Amino acid sequence: MLVYNDMILLDLVGPLTAFNMLQADVRLIARSMQPIIPDVRIPIAPTDTFETSPTSLDVLFVPGGLKGTLDAIRDDKTISFVKERGATAGLVTSVCTGSLLLGAAGLLSGYHATSHWYVRDLLAQMGAIVRKDRVVVDRNRITGGGVTAGIDFGLTIAARMAGEEAAKRIQLLIEYDPKPPFEAGSPEHAGTTLVDDVLARRKQLLAEAAIVVEAAGTALRSR
Amino acid sequence: MLVYNDMILLDLVGPLTAFNMLQADVRLIARSMQPIIPDVRIPIAPTDTFETSPTSLDVLFVPGGLKGTLDAIRDDKTISFVKERGATAGLVTSVCTGSLLLGAAGLLSGYHATSHWYVRDLLAQMGAIVRKDRVVVDRNRITGGGVTAGIDFGLTIAARMAGEEAAKRIQLLIEYDPKPPFEAGSPEHAGTTLVDDVLARRKQLLAEAAIVVEAAGTALRSR
Repeated sequence: MLVYNDMILLDLVGPLTAFNMLQADVRLIARSMQPIIPDVRIPIAPTDTFETSPTSLDVLFVPGGLKGTLDAIRDDKTISFVKERGATAGLVTSVCTGSLLLGAAGLLSGYHATSHWYVRDLLAQMGAIVRKDRVVVDRNRITGGGVTAGIDFGLTIAARMAGEEAAKRIQLLIEYDPKPPFEAGSPEHAGTTLVDDVLARRKQLLAEAAIVVEAAGTALRSR
Repeated sequence: MLVYNDMILLDLVGPLTAFNMLQADVRLIARSMQPIIPDVRIPIAPTDTFETSPTSLDVLFVPGGLKGTLDAIRDDKTISFVKERGATAGLVTSVCTGSLLLGAAGLLSGYHATSHWYVRDLLAQMGAIVRKDRVVVDRNRITGGGVTAGIDFGLTIAARMAGEEAAKRIQLLIEYDPKPPFEAGSPEHAGTTLVDDVLARRKQLLAEAAIVVEAAGTALRSR
Protein backbone atom coordinates (compact mmCIF):
# COMPACT_ATOMS: atom_id res chain seq x y z
CA MET A 1 0.00 0.00 0.00
CA LEU A 2 1.50 3.28 -1.11
CA VAL A 3 1.17 6.03 1.50
CA TYR A 4 1.74 9.73 0.93
CA ASN A 5 1.09 13.08 2.58
CA ASP A 6 -2.50 14.36 2.38
CA MET A 7 -3.87 10.94 1.50
CA ILE A 8 -7.30 10.27 2.98
CA LEU A 9 -6.73 7.89 5.86
CA LEU A 10 -10.13 6.23 5.41
CA ASP A 11 -9.13 5.32 1.82
CA LEU A 12 -6.32 3.27 3.33
CA VAL A 13 -8.00 1.86 6.42
CA GLY A 14 -11.07 0.39 4.67
CA PRO A 15 -9.02 -1.94 2.44
CA LEU A 16 -6.36 -2.41 5.13
CA THR A 17 -8.96 -3.80 7.54
CA ALA A 18 -9.95 -6.42 4.97
CA PHE A 19 -6.32 -7.26 4.10
CA ASN A 20 -5.48 -7.57 7.79
CA MET A 21 -8.31 -10.05 8.31
CA LEU A 22 -6.80 -12.12 5.49
CA GLN A 23 -3.56 -12.08 7.49
CA ALA A 24 -1.78 -10.52 4.55
CA ASP A 25 1.77 -9.22 4.90
CA VAL A 26 0.88 -5.53 4.56
CA ARG A 27 3.54 -2.91 3.87
CA LEU A 28 2.99 0.84 3.99
CA ILE A 29 5.42 2.07 1.37
CA ALA A 30 6.48 5.70 1.13
CA ARG A 31 9.07 7.95 -0.45
CA SER A 32 10.96 7.98 2.86
CA MET A 33 10.52 6.65 6.38
CA GLN A 34 9.25 10.03 7.59
CA PRO A 35 5.74 9.81 9.04
CA ILE A 36 2.98 10.57 6.55
CA ILE A 37 0.43 13.23 7.52
CA PRO A 38 -2.97 12.26 6.09
CA ASP A 39 -6.18 14.34 5.91
CA VAL A 40 -7.05 13.69 9.56
CA ARG A 41 -3.55 14.69 10.79
CA ILE A 42 -2.71 11.40 12.55
CA PRO A 43 0.93 10.67 11.65
CA ILE A 44 1.31 7.29 9.96
CA ALA A 45 4.72 5.59 9.99
CA PRO A 46 5.71 3.88 6.73
CA THR A 47 7.10 0.36 7.02
CA ASP A 48 9.15 0.54 3.80
CA THR A 49 10.61 3.03 1.38
CA PHE A 50 10.60 2.64 -2.39
CA GLU A 51 14.10 1.21 -2.00
CA THR A 52 13.28 -1.36 0.72
CA SER A 53 9.89 -2.39 -0.67
CA PRO A 54 9.63 -5.98 -1.90
CA THR A 55 10.21 -5.98 -5.66
CA SER A 56 7.32 -8.31 -6.35
CA LEU A 57 3.94 -7.42 -4.84
CA ASP A 58 0.78 -9.53 -4.89
CA VAL A 59 -1.24 -6.33 -4.66
CA LEU A 60 -0.18 -2.78 -5.36
CA PHE A 61 -2.68 -0.40 -3.74
CA VAL A 62 -2.85 3.37 -4.07
CA PRO A 63 -5.17 5.41 -1.81
CA GLY A 64 -6.55 8.81 -2.76
CA GLY A 65 -6.82 12.33 -1.41
CA LEU A 66 -6.77 14.81 -4.27
CA LYS A 67 -4.18 17.31 -3.03
CA GLY A 68 -1.76 14.54 -2.12
CA THR A 69 -2.44 12.59 -5.31
CA LEU A 70 -1.54 15.61 -7.45
CA ASP A 71 1.69 16.15 -5.50
CA ALA A 72 2.51 12.44 -5.94
CA ILE A 73 1.83 12.59 -9.71
CA ARG A 74 4.31 15.47 -9.99
CA ASP A 75 6.96 13.47 -8.18
CA ASP A 76 9.04 11.45 -10.65
CA LYS A 77 10.29 9.13 -7.93
CA THR A 78 6.74 8.16 -6.93
CA ILE A 79 5.61 7.71 -10.54
CA SER A 80 8.65 5.52 -11.28
CA PHE A 81 7.96 3.35 -8.24
CA VAL A 82 4.28 2.87 -9.11
CA LYS A 83 5.14 2.15 -12.74
CA GLU A 84 7.81 -0.42 -11.87
CA ARG A 85 5.88 -2.28 -9.17
CA GLY A 86 2.65 -2.01 -11.18
CA ALA A 87 4.33 -3.79 -14.11
CA THR A 88 4.82 -6.96 -12.04
CA ALA A 89 2.17 -6.78 -9.28
CA GLY A 90 -0.50 -9.47 -9.23
CA LEU A 91 -3.23 -6.86 -8.80
CA VAL A 92 -2.88 -3.14 -9.57
CA THR A 93 -5.44 -1.32 -7.48
CA SER A 94 -6.65 1.99 -6.09
CA VAL A 95 -9.44 3.74 -4.26
CA CYS A 96 -10.65 7.29 -4.81
CA THR A 97 -8.23 9.64 -6.62
CA GLY A 98 -5.51 7.00 -6.34
CA SER A 99 -6.50 5.88 -9.85
CA LEU A 100 -5.21 9.19 -11.22
CA LEU A 101 -1.77 8.16 -10.00
CA LEU A 102 -2.10 4.70 -11.58
CA GLY A 103 -3.21 6.45 -14.76
CA ALA A 104 -0.28 8.88 -14.71
CA ALA A 105 2.06 5.90 -14.35
CA GLY A 106 0.56 4.50 -17.57
CA LEU A 107 -1.09 1.58 -15.81
CA LEU A 108 -4.69 2.22 -16.86
CA SER A 109 -4.26 2.70 -20.59
CA GLY A 110 -6.90 0.56 -22.28
CA TYR A 111 -8.46 -0.47 -18.97
CA HIS A 112 -11.91 0.24 -17.57
CA ALA A 113 -11.48 2.22 -14.37
CA THR A 114 -13.14 4.56 -11.89
CA SER A 115 -12.22 7.24 -9.37
CA HIS A 116 -13.80 9.76 -7.00
CA TRP A 117 -16.85 11.15 -8.85
CA TYR A 118 -15.46 14.67 -9.08
CA VAL A 119 -12.33 13.66 -11.04
CA ARG A 120 -13.52 10.44 -12.67
CA ASP A 121 -13.71 11.86 -16.18
CA LEU A 122 -10.06 12.92 -16.06
CA LEU A 123 -9.03 9.26 -16.27
CA ALA A 124 -9.85 9.28 -19.99
CA GLN A 125 -6.93 11.61 -20.64
CA MET A 126 -4.60 8.84 -19.50
CA GLY A 127 -6.17 6.27 -21.79
CA ALA A 128 -8.62 4.69 -19.36
CA ILE A 129 -12.22 3.86 -20.22
CA VAL A 130 -14.16 5.70 -17.52
CA ARG A 131 -16.78 3.76 -15.59
CA LYS A 132 -19.19 4.97 -12.91
CA ASP A 133 -19.38 1.73 -10.92
CA ARG A 134 -18.34 1.68 -7.26
CA VAL A 135 -15.69 -0.95 -7.91
CA VAL A 136 -14.39 -1.65 -11.41
CA VAL A 137 -12.56 -4.88 -12.20
CA ASP A 138 -10.79 -5.16 -15.56
CA ARG A 139 -8.34 -8.04 -15.76
CA ASN A 140 -5.89 -7.34 -12.90
CA ARG A 141 -6.78 -3.67 -12.52
CA ILE A 142 -9.26 -3.01 -9.71
CA THR A 143 -10.25 0.57 -8.97
CA GLY A 144 -12.77 1.93 -6.49
CA GLY A 145 -14.79 5.14 -6.29
CA GLY A 146 -14.40 7.85 -3.63
CA VAL A 147 -13.24 7.18 -0.05
CA THR A 148 -15.89 4.81 1.38
CA ALA A 149 -15.83 2.72 -1.80
CA GLY A 150 -12.67 1.32 -0.19
CA ILE A 151 -14.84 -0.98 1.90
CA ASP A 152 -16.68 -2.46 -1.09
CA PHE A 153 -13.29 -2.58 -2.82
CA GLY A 154 -11.65 -4.38 0.13
CA LEU A 155 -14.32 -7.07 0.09
CA THR A 156 -13.92 -7.46 -3.69
CA ILE A 157 -10.17 -7.96 -3.30
CA ALA A 158 -10.70 -10.34 -0.37
CA ALA A 159 -12.98 -12.50 -2.53
CA ARG A 160 -10.41 -12.50 -5.31
CA MET A 161 -7.52 -13.39 -2.98
CA ALA A 162 -9.19 -15.80 -0.56
CA GLY A 163 -12.58 -16.72 -1.99
CA GLU A 164 -16.15 -15.55 -1.50
CA GLU A 165 -16.62 -17.28 1.87
CA ALA A 166 -13.64 -15.45 3.34
CA ALA A 167 -14.93 -12.15 1.98
CA LYS A 168 -18.37 -12.75 3.42
CA ARG A 169 -16.86 -13.61 6.80
CA ILE A 170 -15.03 -10.28 6.77
CA GLN A 171 -18.25 -8.48 5.78
CA LEU A 172 -20.03 -10.04 8.75
CA LEU A 173 -17.17 -9.24 11.13
CA ILE A 174 -17.12 -5.58 10.08
CA GLU A 175 -20.94 -5.59 10.07
CA TYR A 176 -21.07 -4.04 6.62
CA ASP A 177 -24.80 -3.73 6.29
CA PRO A 178 -24.86 -0.03 5.42
CA LYS A 179 -27.82 2.19 6.17
CA PRO A 180 -26.79 5.76 5.33
CA PRO A 181 -28.95 8.26 7.23
CA PHE A 182 -29.25 10.39 4.07
CA GLU A 183 -29.24 9.73 0.34
CA ALA A 184 -26.51 12.06 -0.78
CA GLY A 185 -23.63 9.72 -1.50
CA SER A 186 -23.48 10.20 -5.27
CA PRO A 187 -23.91 13.26 -7.49
CA GLU A 188 -27.10 11.68 -8.86
CA HIS A 189 -28.63 11.28 -5.38
CA ALA A 190 -27.26 14.48 -3.88
CA GLY A 191 -28.79 16.79 -6.47
CA THR A 192 -27.30 19.75 -8.31
CA THR A 193 -27.34 22.28 -5.45
CA LEU A 194 -25.18 20.14 -3.21
CA VAL A 195 -22.95 19.01 -6.10
CA ASP A 196 -22.39 22.60 -7.20
CA ASP A 197 -21.61 23.57 -3.62
CA VAL A 198 -18.95 20.84 -3.30
CA LEU A 199 -17.47 21.68 -6.71
CA ALA A 200 -17.33 25.38 -5.82
CA ARG A 201 -15.50 24.65 -2.57
CA ARG A 202 -12.97 22.49 -4.46
CA LYS A 203 -12.72 24.81 -7.46
CA GLN A 204 -9.02 25.62 -7.24
CA LEU A 205 -7.96 22.06 -6.51
CA LEU A 206 -10.08 20.68 -9.35
CA ALA A 207 -8.61 23.25 -11.77
CA GLU A 208 -5.16 22.15 -10.65
CA ALA A 209 -6.16 18.49 -11.15
CA ALA A 210 -7.19 19.21 -14.75
CA ILE A 211 -3.80 20.79 -15.47
CA VAL A 212 -1.75 18.07 -13.76
CA VAL A 213 -3.67 15.26 -15.45
CA GLU A 214 -3.47 16.91 -18.85
CA ALA A 215 0.30 17.16 -18.48
CA ALA A 216 0.49 13.53 -17.35
CA GLY A 217 -1.59 12.43 -20.34
CA THR A 218 0.61 14.38 -22.75
CA ALA A 219 3.74 12.85 -21.21
CA LEU A 220 2.27 9.35 -21.59
CA ARG A 221 1.43 9.85 -25.26
CA SER A 222 4.88 11.26 -26.09
CA ARG A 223 6.70 8.18 -24.76
CA MET B 1 -12.07 10.16 21.06
CA LEU B 2 -10.78 7.54 23.44
CA VAL B 3 -8.05 5.36 21.92
CA TYR B 4 -6.74 2.10 23.34
CA ASN B 5 -4.67 -0.91 22.36
CA ASP B 6 -6.40 -3.45 20.11
CA MET B 7 -9.11 -1.01 19.14
CA ILE B 8 -10.30 -1.41 15.54
CA LEU B 9 -8.78 1.46 13.62
CA LEU B 10 -11.69 1.61 11.18
CA ASP B 11 -14.05 2.20 14.15
CA LEU B 12 -12.10 5.38 14.82
CA VAL B 13 -11.37 6.58 11.30
CA GLY B 14 -14.95 6.46 9.98
CA PRO B 15 -16.26 8.97 12.57
CA LEU B 16 -12.96 10.86 12.61
CA THR B 17 -13.24 11.56 8.88
CA ALA B 18 -16.66 13.13 9.43
CA PHE B 19 -15.50 15.11 12.50
CA ASN B 20 -12.45 16.34 10.58
CA MET B 21 -14.64 17.63 7.77
CA LEU B 22 -16.60 19.60 10.38
CA GLN B 23 -13.26 21.12 11.39
CA ALA B 24 -13.76 19.84 14.91
CA ASP B 25 -10.96 20.06 17.47
CA VAL B 26 -10.34 16.32 17.69
CA ARG B 27 -8.32 14.82 20.54
CA LEU B 28 -7.14 11.21 20.70
CA ILE B 29 -7.16 10.54 24.41
CA ALA B 30 -5.37 7.59 25.98
CA ARG B 31 -4.16 6.24 29.29
CA SER B 32 -0.67 7.49 28.45
CA MET B 33 1.13 9.15 25.56
CA GLN B 34 2.54 5.81 24.40
CA PRO B 35 1.48 4.94 20.86
CA ILE B 36 -1.63 2.78 20.65
CA ILE B 37 -1.42 -0.42 18.63
CA PRO B 38 -4.78 -1.06 16.94
CA ASP B 39 -5.99 -4.19 15.10
CA VAL B 40 -4.11 -3.29 11.92
CA ARG B 41 -0.80 -2.69 13.79
CA ILE B 42 -0.27 0.92 12.67
CA PRO B 43 0.92 2.80 15.79
CA ILE B 44 -1.36 5.72 16.61
CA ALA B 45 0.00 8.56 18.76
CA PRO B 46 -2.43 9.93 21.36
CA THR B 47 -2.74 13.71 21.57
CA ASP B 48 -3.82 13.76 25.24
CA THR B 49 -3.79 11.62 28.34
CA PHE B 50 -6.70 11.32 30.78
CA GLU B 51 -4.91 14.02 32.80
CA THR B 52 -4.36 16.52 29.96
CA SER B 53 -7.73 15.94 28.25
CA PRO B 54 -10.12 18.91 28.28
CA THR B 55 -12.51 18.47 31.20
CA SER B 56 -15.55 19.39 29.16
CA LEU B 57 -16.08 17.55 25.86
CA ASP B 58 -18.73 18.30 23.25
CA VAL B 59 -18.55 14.66 22.19
CA LEU B 60 -17.10 11.71 24.02
CA PHE B 61 -16.49 8.89 21.55
CA VAL B 62 -15.41 5.32 22.29
CA PRO B 63 -14.35 2.99 19.44
CA GLY B 64 -14.57 -0.81 19.66
CA GLY B 65 -12.42 -3.86 19.18
CA LEU B 66 -13.53 -6.60 21.56
CA LYS B 67 -10.19 -7.69 23.03
CA GLY B 68 -9.17 -4.10 23.70
CA THR B 69 -12.61 -3.13 25.00
CA LEU B 70 -12.50 -5.92 27.60
CA ASP B 71 -9.02 -4.86 28.73
CA ALA B 72 -10.25 -1.26 28.99
CA ILE B 73 -13.31 -2.30 31.02
CA ARG B 74 -11.01 -4.04 33.51
CA ASP B 75 -8.92 -0.90 33.87
CA ASP B 76 -10.25 1.30 36.68
CA LYS B 77 -8.45 4.36 35.37
CA THR B 78 -10.14 4.07 31.97
CA ILE B 79 -13.57 3.44 33.48
CA SER B 80 -13.16 6.45 35.81
CA PHE B 81 -12.18 8.68 32.90
CA VAL B 82 -15.12 7.58 30.73
CA LYS B 83 -17.52 7.94 33.66
CA GLU B 84 -16.31 11.43 34.57
CA ARG B 85 -16.17 12.86 31.05
CA GLY B 86 -19.38 11.07 30.11
CA ALA B 87 -21.19 12.82 32.97
CA THR B 88 -20.62 16.24 31.40
CA ALA B 89 -20.08 15.56 27.67
CA GLY B 90 -22.59 17.02 25.24
CA LEU B 91 -22.89 13.68 23.43
CA VAL B 92 -21.85 10.31 24.82
CA THR B 93 -21.13 8.04 21.88
CA SER B 94 -19.59 4.81 20.65
CA VAL B 95 -19.23 2.48 17.71
CA CYS B 96 -19.00 -1.31 17.81
CA THR B 97 -18.02 -2.85 21.17
CA GLY B 98 -17.24 0.65 22.50
CA SER B 99 -20.77 0.67 23.93
CA LEU B 100 -19.77 -2.10 26.36
CA LEU B 101 -17.27 0.35 27.84
CA LEU B 102 -19.91 3.09 28.07
CA GLY B 103 -22.20 0.54 29.70
CA ALA B 104 -19.56 -0.57 32.20
CA ALA B 105 -19.06 3.09 33.14
CA GLY B 106 -22.77 3.25 33.96
CA LEU B 107 -23.56 5.59 31.10
CA LEU B 108 -26.17 3.48 29.30
CA SER B 109 -28.44 2.56 32.19
CA GLY B 110 -32.00 3.23 31.04
CA TYR B 111 -30.88 4.15 27.52
CA HIS B 112 -31.61 2.44 24.21
CA ALA B 113 -28.29 1.37 22.73
CA THR B 114 -26.59 -0.96 20.27
CA SER B 115 -23.21 -2.62 19.69
CA HIS B 116 -21.49 -5.12 17.41
CA TRP B 117 -24.06 -7.84 16.67
CA TYR B 118 -22.10 -10.54 18.46
CA VAL B 119 -22.07 -8.82 21.84
CA ARG B 120 -25.14 -6.59 21.54
CA ASP B 121 -27.28 -8.57 23.97
CA LEU B 122 -24.69 -8.15 26.73
CA LEU B 123 -25.62 -4.47 26.98
CA ALA B 124 -28.78 -5.44 28.87
CA GLN B 125 -26.67 -6.57 31.83
CA MET B 126 -25.55 -2.98 32.27
CA GLY B 127 -29.07 -1.60 32.22
CA ALA B 128 -29.32 -0.67 28.55
CA ILE B 129 -32.33 -1.42 26.38
CA VAL B 130 -30.81 -3.34 23.48
CA ARG B 131 -31.66 -2.23 19.96
CA LYS B 132 -30.66 -3.78 16.64
CA ASP B 133 -30.54 -0.56 14.61
CA ARG B 134 -27.33 0.50 12.92
CA VAL B 135 -27.24 3.79 14.82
CA VAL B 136 -29.30 4.32 17.98
CA VAL B 137 -30.02 7.81 19.28
CA ASP B 138 -31.53 8.14 22.75
CA ARG B 139 -31.33 11.65 24.16
CA ASN B 140 -27.58 12.43 24.16
CA ARG B 141 -26.46 8.82 23.87
CA ILE B 142 -25.60 7.77 20.32
CA THR B 143 -24.30 4.26 19.73
CA GLY B 144 -23.44 2.51 16.47
CA GLY B 145 -23.27 -1.15 15.43
CA GLY B 146 -20.11 -3.01 14.41
CA VAL B 147 -17.08 -1.35 12.74
CA THR B 148 -18.46 0.06 9.46
CA ALA B 149 -21.53 1.44 11.27
CA GLY B 150 -19.06 4.18 12.24
CA ILE B 151 -19.65 5.82 8.88
CA ASP B 152 -23.44 5.96 9.29
CA PHE B 153 -22.77 7.05 12.88
CA GLY B 154 -20.37 9.81 11.78
CA LEU B 155 -22.96 11.25 9.42
CA THR B 156 -25.61 11.09 12.16
CA ILE B 157 -23.35 13.04 14.54
CA ALA B 158 -22.43 15.51 11.77
CA ALA B 159 -26.11 16.24 11.20
CA ARG B 160 -26.64 16.74 14.92
CA MET B 161 -23.60 19.03 15.30
CA ALA B 162 -23.73 21.01 12.07
CA GLY B 163 -27.06 20.33 10.40
CA GLU B 164 -28.33 18.03 7.68
CA GLU B 165 -26.81 20.00 4.79
CA ALA B 166 -23.33 19.70 6.28
CA ALA B 167 -23.84 15.97 6.84
CA LYS B 168 -25.01 15.47 3.26
CA ARG B 169 -22.02 17.41 1.95
CA ILE B 170 -19.73 15.05 3.88
CA GLN B 171 -21.62 12.06 2.52
CA LEU B 172 -21.10 13.31 -1.03
CA LEU B 173 -17.40 14.05 -0.40
CA ILE B 174 -16.77 10.57 0.97
CA GLU B 175 -18.98 9.14 -1.78
CA TYR B 176 -20.99 7.10 0.69
CA ASP B 177 -23.27 5.34 -1.74
CA PRO B 178 -22.55 1.80 -0.56
CA LYS B 179 -22.88 -1.21 -2.84
CA PRO B 180 -21.56 -4.22 -0.91
CA PRO B 181 -20.49 -6.97 -3.33
CA PHE B 182 -22.16 -9.56 -1.06
CA GLU B 183 -25.11 -9.61 1.31
CA ALA B 184 -23.46 -10.89 4.45
CA GLY B 185 -23.21 -7.80 6.62
CA SER B 186 -25.64 -8.84 9.34
CA PRO B 187 -26.36 -12.18 11.02
CA GLU B 188 -29.79 -12.17 9.35
CA HIS B 189 -28.31 -11.78 5.86
CA ALA B 190 -25.23 -13.92 6.40
CA GLY B 191 -27.13 -17.04 7.42
CA THR B 192 -26.47 -19.49 10.23
CA THR B 193 -23.48 -21.33 8.72
CA LEU B 194 -21.41 -18.17 8.42
CA VAL B 195 -22.63 -16.81 11.77
CA ASP B 196 -21.75 -20.06 13.54
CA ASP B 197 -18.34 -20.03 11.88
CA VAL B 198 -17.60 -16.49 13.11
CA LEU B 199 -18.89 -17.29 16.62
CA ALA B 200 -16.78 -20.46 16.76
CA ARG B 201 -13.66 -18.54 15.78
CA ARG B 202 -14.38 -15.96 18.50
CA LYS B 203 -15.53 -18.49 21.09
CA GLN B 204 -12.92 -17.82 23.75
CA LEU B 205 -13.11 -14.04 23.42
CA LEU B 206 -16.91 -14.06 23.55
CA ALA B 207 -16.84 -16.26 26.66
CA GLU B 208 -14.44 -13.77 28.22
CA ALA B 209 -16.77 -10.91 27.22
CA ALA B 210 -19.69 -12.57 29.00
CA ILE B 211 -17.66 -12.86 32.20
CA VAL B 212 -16.27 -9.32 32.08
CA VAL B 213 -19.65 -7.76 31.33
CA GLU B 214 -21.38 -9.78 34.04
CA ALA B 215 -18.83 -8.54 36.56
CA ALA B 216 -19.26 -4.97 35.33
CA GLY B 217 -23.05 -5.26 35.63
CA THR B 218 -22.78 -6.63 39.16
CA ALA B 219 -20.41 -3.81 40.14
CA LEU B 220 -22.86 -1.23 38.74
CA ARG B 221 -25.81 -2.62 40.66
CA SER B 222 -23.91 -2.75 43.95
CA ARG B 223 -23.01 0.93 43.85
